[in-house]
Amino acid sequence: MIKAGIVGGTGYTGVELLRILARHPDVEVSVVTSRADAGVRVDTVYPSLRNFVAVSFSQPEIDTLAQCDVVFFATPNGTAMQMAEALLARGIKVIDLSADFRLQNIPEWEQWYGMTHACPDLVKHAVYGLPEVNRAAIQQAKLVACPGCYPTAVQLGFLPLIENRLIDTQQLIADVKSGVSGAGRKAELATLMSETGESFKAYGVGGHRHLPEIRQGLSHAAGETVQLTFVPHLTPMIRGIHATLYAQINASADTLQAIQALYEQRYQHEAFVDVLPQGAHPDTRNVRGSNNCQIALHQPQGGNTLVVLSVIDNLVKGASGQAVQNMNLMFGLAETTGLDIVALYP
Amino acid sequence: MIKAGIVGGTGYTGVELLRILARHPDVEVSVVTSRADAGVRVDTVYPSLRNFVAVSFSQPEIDTLAQCDVVFFATPNGTAMQMAEALLARGIKVIDLSADFRLQNIPEWEQWYGMTHACPDLVKHAVYGLPEVNRAAIQQAKLVACPGCYPTAVQLGFLPLIENRLIDTQQLIADVKSGVSGAGRKAELATLMSETGESFKAYGVGGHRHLPEIRQGLSHAAGETVQLTFVPHLTPMIRGIHATLYAQINASADTLQAIQALYEQRYQHEAFVDVLPQGAHPDTRNVRGSNNCQIALHQPQGGNTLVVLSVIDNLVKGASGQAVQNMNLMFGLAETTGLDIVALYP
Amino acid sequence: MIKAGIVGGTGYTGVELLRILARHPDVEVSVVTSRADAGVRVDTVYPSLRNFVAVSFSQPEIDTLAQCDVVFFATPNGTAMQMAEALLARGIKVIDLSADFRLQNIPEWEQWYGMTHACPDLVKHAVYGLPEVNRAAIQQAKLVACPGCYPTAVQLGFLPLIENRLIDTQQLIADVKSGVSGAGRKAELATLMSETGESFKAYGVGGHRHLPEIRQGLSHAAGETVQLTFVPHLTPMIRGIHATLYAQINASADTLQAIQALYEQRYQHEAFVDVLPQGAHPDTRNVRGSNNCQIALHQPQGGNTLVVLSVIDNLVKGASGQAVQNMNLMFGLAETTGLDIVALYP
Amino acid sequence: MIKAGIVGGTGYTGVELLRILARHPDVEVSVVTSRADAGVRVDTVYPSLRNFVAVSFSQPEIDTLAQCDVVFFATPNGTAMQMAEALLARGIKVIDLSADFRLQNIPEWEQWYGMTHACPDLVKHAVYGLPEVNRAAIQQAKLVACPGCYPTAVQLGFLPLIENRLIDTQQLIADVKSGVSGAGRKAELATLMSETGESFKAYGVGGHRHLPEIRQGLSHAAGETVQLTFVPHLTPMIRGIHATLYAQINASADTLQAIQALYEQRYQHEAFVDVLPQGAHPDTRNVRGSNNCQIALHQPQGGNTLVVLSVIDNLVKGASGQAVQNMNLMFGLAETTGLDIVALYP
Repeated sequence: MIKAGIVGGTGYTGVELLRILARHPDVEVSVVTSRADAGVRVDTVYPSLRNFVAVSFSQPEIDTLAQCDVVFFATPNGTAMQMAEALLARGIKVIDLSADFRLQNIPEWEQWYGMTHACPDLVKHAVYGLPEVNRAAIQQAKLVACPGCYPTAVQLGFLPLIENRLIDTQQLIADVKSGVSGAGRKAELATLMSETGESFKAYGVGGHRHLPEIRQGLSHAAGETVQLTFVPHLTPMIRGIHATLYAQINASADTLQAIQALYEQRYQHEAFVDVLPQGAHPDTRNVRGSNNCQIALHQPQGGNTLVVLSVIDNLVKGASGQAVQNMNLMFGLAETTGLDIVALYP
Repeated sequence: MIKAGIVGGTGYTGVELLRILARHPDVEVSVVTSRADAGVRVDTVYPSLRNFVAVSFSQPEIDTLAQCDVVFFATPNGTAMQMAEALLARGIKVIDLSADFRLQNIPEWEQWYGMTHACPDLVKHAVYGLPEVNRAAIQQAKLVACPGCYPTAVQLGFLPLIENRLIDTQQLIADVKSGVSGAGRKAELATLMSETGESFKAYGVGGHRHLPEIRQGLSHAAGETVQLTFVPHLTPMIRGIHATLYAQINASADTLQAIQALYEQRYQHEAFVDVLPQGAHPDTRNVRGSNNCQIALHQPQGGNTLVVLSVIDNLVKGASGQAVQNMNLMFGLAETTGLDIVALYP
Repeated sequence: MIKAGIVGGTGYTGVELLRILARHPDVEVSVVTSRADAGVRVDTVYPSLRNFVAVSFSQPEIDTLAQCDVVFFATPNGTAMQMAEALLARGIKVIDLSADFRLQNIPEWEQWYGMTHACPDLVKHAVYGLPEVNRAAIQQAKLVACPGCYPTAVQLGFLPLIENRLIDTQQLIADVKSGVSGAGRKAELATLMSETGESFKAYGVGGHRHLPEIRQGLSHAAGETVQLTFVPHLTPMIRGIHATLYAQINASADTLQAIQALYEQRYQHEAFVDVLPQGAHPDTRNVRGSNNCQIALHQPQGGNTLVVLSVIDNLVKGASGQAVQNMNLMFGLAETTGLDIVALYP
Repeated sequence: MIKAGIVGGTGYTGVELLRILARHPDVEVSVVTSRADAGVRVDTVYPSLRNFVAVSFSQPEIDTLAQCDVVFFATPNGTAMQMAEALLARGIKVIDLSADFRLQNIPEWEQWYGMTHACPDLVKHAVYGLPEVNRAAIQQAKLVACPGCYPTAVQLGFLPLIENRLIDTQQLIADVKSGVSGAGRKAELATLMSETGESFKAYGVGGHRHLPEIRQGLSHAAGETVQLTFVPHLTPMIRGIHATLYAQINASADTLQAIQALYEQRYQHEAFVDVLPQGAHPDTRNVRGSNNCQIALHQPQGGNTLVVLSVIDNLVKGASGQAVQNMNLMFGLAETTGLDIVALYP
């Protein structure tokens, strides 16, 4: 059994890791940390885990975590970079769900995240944990930086077009809608039900931290710096991300049928990326609670603008599920182990 | 007192007309029709109207409606075109909330709406009821075609840019999100709470009936045929439309500050169009139940793509409120009469 | 024009007072206080009030409030009791929406609210602001304590039964469900959309602060101390309270028809209490945004247990609407002035 | 592998059976019927099942179902009673999720369900599928009638009190709240999101079909006919039932501590009934998607009224999960097989 530790077990990505790992046949969660709730049983804070998780929260100390084979960071930005080196030094694999190791460009990271990076040299050794792009590297990795929720939905939607040079990479638009759980589990006015229920809004249009991450991934695939307009929105639901992507097809572009075939081929061996029949409209509910990404293609009025619809559960494929998928790869397990979860519908 | 009739009083736009007109100082609702509920008191079907509406539903007959000064059609498409001529012939003003008189191009209308138009000659006499564009014509009109909900939010958002030739009109994108009340009050699987709650999806990406209507309006303002990609989405809330509009600024374009000033100037005398401070993010909740449209402008990363956010309540400015605004104009009343409604927050 | 002040203008009852008073023909809101937002325009914090409210927040100082004819306290418990005496001394009428003056039994108040009362002698001069019970006293009052939201729905539902000695007052049960706005506008984990959306729970079953208030009102009507089991629940919606009341009918009890007639008679002259036809099921949506209370009676299987259903909007009849109703009475205005609001449906 | 058939695969209990059985290690779903969708792949109708269910819908014919070892009826009332005998005659076990075999009193069934029962003699051979009461009989059963959702939550909450004669059985009150999925997957006005969202209401207070079923179960446990007032409510959420139960404790009653201990003892060996610590408040979200029932006890103000809170997921423990639990028992499998599902939080 793989002994796993979770640092920051009281956020939504932490409890979601517990939901998934509680049923993982090859993993035993031996440490779950929380400064605030140290000493309290995890299932006291989360009654949904009663009969599934028996451990109590402990203080986030290296010595306690040292018993683990792998440590997940489900922490706010800035925590993993403080502890990762010490854990790696002890031969413990690290999977960071926060943003600390996502951007290779340190000055850009420090500008967007507003702090000085604690271990810039370690960043170049971190592998960006998008298995559909970096599978081989992840299998060898000691430190994996899990992608953000928006970047996962947007990159999986754009990749086949960019890898095949079918669109104008200088004019990408990603209009993305997220459920409120993406804002995390913290006391805030802005995400009260009275504030977000029955209402819809855009936010961070001027600039969102996931923009440089998406740009880094797509630019790498394009072999050139792409230009992207990214507009995130807050949707009155708890889970789910729906990315509506717009791209201008190149003059030389294939027919929609050909592009559809290309998407199906690109993802045919991917267990968690599902290309729907041409013209479909994916619902976020159809991936709720599952690690799936469902994608559909449209070319309205046969025009020059291609529309890609890409949906995921922000807490699963957008965070904890993808983290477990990465763990499976890092430990040589079948990639789908513990992730055979059917979406909860209705 | 203006005697008003409402044909199709059991849909959401019908009951919303009743909510607004019940408090209108110059209007008395004398006829409300419904084939299914003829003879039943309106407030039996809609307890929210108890103590405000005393009439009963009647059959939709010309002779009954003949007592009215104005008749609103809150009916499915295809009904108003059957009755409008007879009412107009009796000197009764007609305000149609359906799509029957929105498109001047009859073949295009028949193609999108899948039926033969009953009175094509009358269409050219219909005035498109967007007061911010057609105020003078509406004041003289006998027959007004109220805009659809999506077209209202999208046109008000794009107009100043198009009227001033600031953007590439061949590459417009409107990513629009609507509450489920836009689907109307009819028994359907697709809009059950179990189907639409806690989920988000796009629909009609291949082509939506509001596309030709938006294109007609924007092309008229542009003096040329515009190219628009329009993607509607279903949001898990009841009321509200949020339009996220993308346009490529012309080389000769002004600064964002100048464009902001231009929007403020364009709408400075409009009671129901409110340009928010530059960089704001309008919430649909802030116009819920009111006749307001709130607009905000963004230019992400100072790039070439301008983002306009435009929100309305689909049942008010997107339907019944705009219909009453048109009625006020047609009868020479102050445009805001009966529409001094503060949005319901939270 | 009555000059009104609102202390604590940034909570939900404060902004709801502004929504209502903005359209009140005889009131001008001249002062709105907020320590946190002093100096900021009210409509910057609440864009729903743009074009309706032009004032800015000011510090809560007596000298500033001295210009008012009436001051509303939309503050947390413990604030009004600090300032009321000074305002009353200047001849300013005070309407408290908090709990400071609701309980005549000071020790009981101090036990439930966990603080020492600042002006116990003033409490006996406060009038409990339930117009359907205390209208005459309210008309003469200088200081009115507005009832809580739960107590309003429960008392209006039980009163006719108790006043007429038809039920066993030692075995009352009130199972009440509230929307989350009742928890107020403050950063809290418990009322995040991710915590309260798509979920239902009871809370405070061991004891809720509104219990002694309900018991005080019903005991006064009964002429004896009543026994009540009160179980509040949190419902995944923003506005609305639904009280399901259970009582054991006395042996001598009338038929349900007679009890229905008695309710209709008791409330026939009440503008805001609406007794629905026997056997109806009131929806909270039918009073959303309005000052109405809708009540319906049932006697399942003709048994001994009477079921009363009573619904209000917790922020209107349960708080700010009732406060304005009280103000109208205190200033000799028609009780319904500014409260002719139709519920927002759908 | 057990070959399972599902009759009526397009309702919510049908698709929920598929979600659960898709991961059941000992079951293969070989037949799923639907008159309307015969020939269509199941995962075309339910994209949430893509990669989990490969079969297509077939016509509901005995010959097709004859290949199965067990057939689940996820059909409207009145269907199972038409087909059960033929299947049983072929040695196929039958598990009915509808109400056809729940009531032993045929005239009472016919009165509440408004039809003539097709096989009254078979009813006496049906076992009521509440494992916590009938485990031994279920293990031997050929035909199991799964309890309704409300009856499951209410009976599990009341049973220990009634079995131990601790309360007055002539004065039981069950105030129960359900998510809208309980109304099923059919086109109806009443359960549109625009009708049920942001609103709360009681329904069927005069009499609900689940009343005789609850009464039958509790009377059997009591050894006498109990008197129950049952008030169901519709809550603006999709899944979940919250039962708030009220009972008058006998003079001879134990302390709450003793009653708490008694509940813990009664359910200590039950995998799916979880007695929370005294004074807890169960959330429906903590059992969403799982087969668990969580129960908590309260005695407000130490009075005579005991309050029991009982929550389940109406589609799992209230329907399809319990059906699989029964199947496990009928086939001698571990009762929890395939039901190790952690609730989806948030």
